[in-house]
Amino acid sequence: MNRLRVPQMTHAAQIEVLKTLVEPGKVLTDADSLNAYGKDWTKHFAPAPLAIVFPKTVEQVQAIVRWANEHRIGLVPSGGRTGLSAAAVAANGEVVVAFDYMNQILAFNEYDRTVVCQPGVVTKQLQLFAEDKGLYYPVDFASSGSSQIGGNIGTNAGGIKVIRYGMTRNWVAGLKVVTGTGELLELNRDLIKNATGYDLRQLFIGAEGTLGFVVEATMRLERAPKNLTAMVLGTPDFDSIMPVLHAFQNKLDLTAFEFFSDKALAKVLARGDVPPAFETDCPFYALLEFEAATEEVAEQALATFEHCVEQGWVLDGVMSQSEQQLQNLWKLREYISETISHWTPYKNDISVTVGKVPAFLHDIDAIVEKNYPDFEVIWFGHIGDGNLHLNILKPEDLSKDEFFAKCAVVNKWVFETVQKYNGSISAEHGVGMTKRDYLHYSRSEAEIACMKAIKAVFDPNGIMNPGKIFN
Amino acid sequence: MNRLRVPQMTHAAQIEVLKTLVEPGKVLTDADSLNAYGKDWTKHFAPAPLAIVFPKTVEQVQAIVRWANEHRIGLVPSGGRTGLSAAAVAANGEVVVAFDYMNQILAFNEYDRTVVCQPGVVTKQLQLFAEDKGLYYPVDFASSGSSQIGGNIGTNAGGIKVIRYGMTRNWVAGLKVVTGTGELLELNRDLIKNATGYDLRQLFIGAEGTLGFVVEATMRLERAPKNLTAMVLGTPDFDSIMPVLHAFQNKLDLTAFEFFSDKALAKVLARGDVPPAFETDCPFYALLEFEAATEEVAEQALATFEHCVEQGWVLDGVMSQSEQQLQNLWKLREYISETISHWTPYKNDISVTVGKVPAFLHDIDAIVEKNYPDFEVIWFGHIGDGNLHLNILKPEDLSKDEFFAKCAVVNKWVFETVQKYNGSISAEHGVGMTKRDYLHYSRSEAEIACMKAIKAVFDPNGIMNPGKIFN
Repeated sequence: MNRLRVPQMTHAAQIEVLKTLVEPGKVLTDADSLNAYGKDWTKHFAPAPLAIVFPKTVEQVQAIVRWANEHRIGLVPSGGRTGLSAAAVAANGEVVVAFDYMNQILAFNEYDRTVVCQPGVVTKQLQLFAEDKGLYYPVDFASSGSSQIGGNIGTNAGGIKVIRYGMTRNWVAGLKVVTGTGELLELNRDLIKNATGYDLRQLFIGAEGTLGFVVEATMRLERAPKNLTAMVLGTPDFDSIMPVLHAFQNKLDLTAFEFFSDKALAKVLARGDVPPAFETDCPFYALLEFEAATEEVAEQALATFEHCVEQGWVLDGVMSQSEQQLQNLWKLREYISETISHWTPYKNDISVTVGKVPAFLHDIDAIVEKNYPDFEVIWFGHIGDGNLHLNILKPEDLSKDEFFAKCAVVNKWVFETVQKYNGSISAEHGVGMTKRDYLHYSRSEAEIACMKAIKAVFDPNGIMNPGKIFN
Repeated sequence: MNRLRVPQMTHAAQIEVLKTLVEPGKVLTDADSLNAYGKDWTKHFAPAPLAIVFPKTVEQVQAIVRWANEHRIGLVPSGGRTGLSAAAVAANGEVVVAFDYMNQILAFNEYDRTVVCQPGVVTKQLQLFAEDKGLYYPVDFASSGSSQIGGNIGTNAGGIKVIRYGMTRNWVAGLKVVTGTGELLELNRDLIKNATGYDLRQLFIGAEGTLGFVVEATMRLERAPKNLTAMVLGTPDFDSIMPVLHAFQNKLDLTAFEFFSDKALAKVLARGDVPPAFETDCPFYALLEFEAATEEVAEQALATFEHCVEQGWVLDGVMSQSEQQLQNLWKLREYISETISHWTPYKNDISVTVGKVPAFLHDIDAIVEKNYPDFEVIWFGHIGDGNLHLNILKPEDLSKDEFFAKCAVVNKWVFETVQKYNGSISAEHGVGMTKRDYLHYSRSEAEIACMKAIKAVFDPNGIMNPGKIFN
């Protein structure tokens, strides 16, 4: 740790020192680069970084962190910049550390089914590598084509297969991190069993780069799923989705259990490029997926479907018989987000325990309907994980400013309802800067104080992604 | 936090204050109680607690911790006291906090498949509760009849089903803990997805009570396995076990993959109460288990077995056809520990990544054989997790003292070899006091410094299970 300060040096002079720490040309300060690398998918903050630096080795990352400590300059880690909470935004003269050149898969361990990745490996790259080995990397979500493993770990990314495979956390066998003091920690040594004190690896997963930067990650792979098969089921009301989930979960190992409302489906079908699942109109739909590895499993699924129909929980349904049909059913769910983006939706990513979902959803619906009867509410999400994506569409006759002003009020009600149901204000998108001021709805003051004290252990000068999660 | 000290009070007077914090009769100071509650299954340390206290509520636990801070008296948490690292030993005038009266299952959530447990719930009690609900609690090990959930969480207990279900960590949906300042933290709210900053829950899992005490835990349950079926396979050498593991893992979801040596098997068969799996003598055996949910799965297993025989990796094998046969095959593995206890074994619980197991095992074998050719080495363990139990039997003509003196030398070599292979000196038994002085073989000085700093955040006065993990 170097606590010397060099207070007289200008920013320009500091950047000249930074340039000596990496390869030639690997520090950028042009406006286009600052703008591109200074932000993620959120649009709330104007990017204003001091420079972008591209390390190629662990030692260069350590040198950059030591430099930042000397000059008391904040560092913002940058992966695929697909985040939705502004955790990768540099809005206050920070230096962005971009991992684009640390993007190699370094090793594959056949018996351990692990892959040693540099942080800049793209999620899709790891998925394809696994496929090539006859295996499977199960964490999957919309931005897998550009998100990077380091960023996935920073936000503990979730997605559409969590019900079976869990979050990114479950797939991290070991981590190498550079802490806020420039120290390199090798965490967990890629072991399955290791009962030697606090599992520090877990702290860095989901820490959004505020404790240190991931410079290498060993990720686990899994057996590839066999004959994935989807069902789309229509239900007479939202509450019926719960016994359907329960019935299928008791009979099958589900790989997904998603839901969407009739309003969400109508928007997708109006595009004209996706076939409907069936003709019956239902207020809510469940999309479930499982491995039909044998005939018996498919028969079990059909029997469970029939049981659900008999109980009145399901009005109609369809099961995929081919890869093409599987893809088409998934489009009904996966196209929602892109389709509704035309209506400038107010979006929230919230979660409660699964059993509380129906009451929670009714409460939110009632609040919005009572106060803003003209607002169209679109629900969809990972219902098997208790994770709901709430989307409120902007009425055509309302200006953006008016709409967002009203949504700010809704936001408070939503978070108060989340708190009442003991839920999370950010299920899988992280806190970053956009949820920072609402953190107390999901974490107690005592917890936040503990988090800040832990931050001080690993980053005493507060230079690692400053202002993210908390101030 | 109360930092006032009451230095003049005698221990007797302090205990009188303690008695006012719990129900009448719930503080014991008689010799039998001090001896019984002052130790776990390890025998290296003489128990010497000041008193045993039995809280019945969270508030009482908080009051006890505040009392301990005032009087600067160490607290040792006590569950089933089945630990093998002396983490639950009170050898230095600590007060033992026994959770025997906080042993209720408080709630069951059908849709979340979660059970809210007090810390004193016995593992078996949770397993039976799950069974009663048609579900399954998959963490299982020899001491499940007396170990408690609080203790399981403290050591992140593993056992025989880790290859499929993971460690205790995977099954903790939420935790309530009382930290070393007496503060109650409710961690993770039992959510599946919760991306709101550092997951403090993870820190307390495996912390051996050094950061705080678990006062409530929400545990996840799983679908009950269908038609569990075991195979015992004999291999021509140890190295053949690895391709066998690989072949089966690519075809089936294994629920267990254990191994044992011919010497281990001979000891068990000599008891006369367990039938042999087959007649062929082999130097090593693998026991694997899977759900034969359908005929096709069983056929797949047989085809894989035949493939392994053709490749020369397997010499002989047997597959269970009934629950009774399944139990009998498991006895060949499960009886080893108890059977060899007659030979006063030197035991170690070590792990490396799975791919390194053969070379690691050969190294240890060579070291012991070269230096102590008269020592009989018995290997068994959870090979699918890279977790080996090394047992060296005492030669009859060697005194206990001589044997243990020689084992202390072996211990150093074993841990040096563990370090060389980047493994763990404690795979699933924890550090406690028995591995404390060897921690540096598995954790760097920088990591240990971070752990101590984190301990100071949650337990500034060092009263929570002092002297465990580190000094």
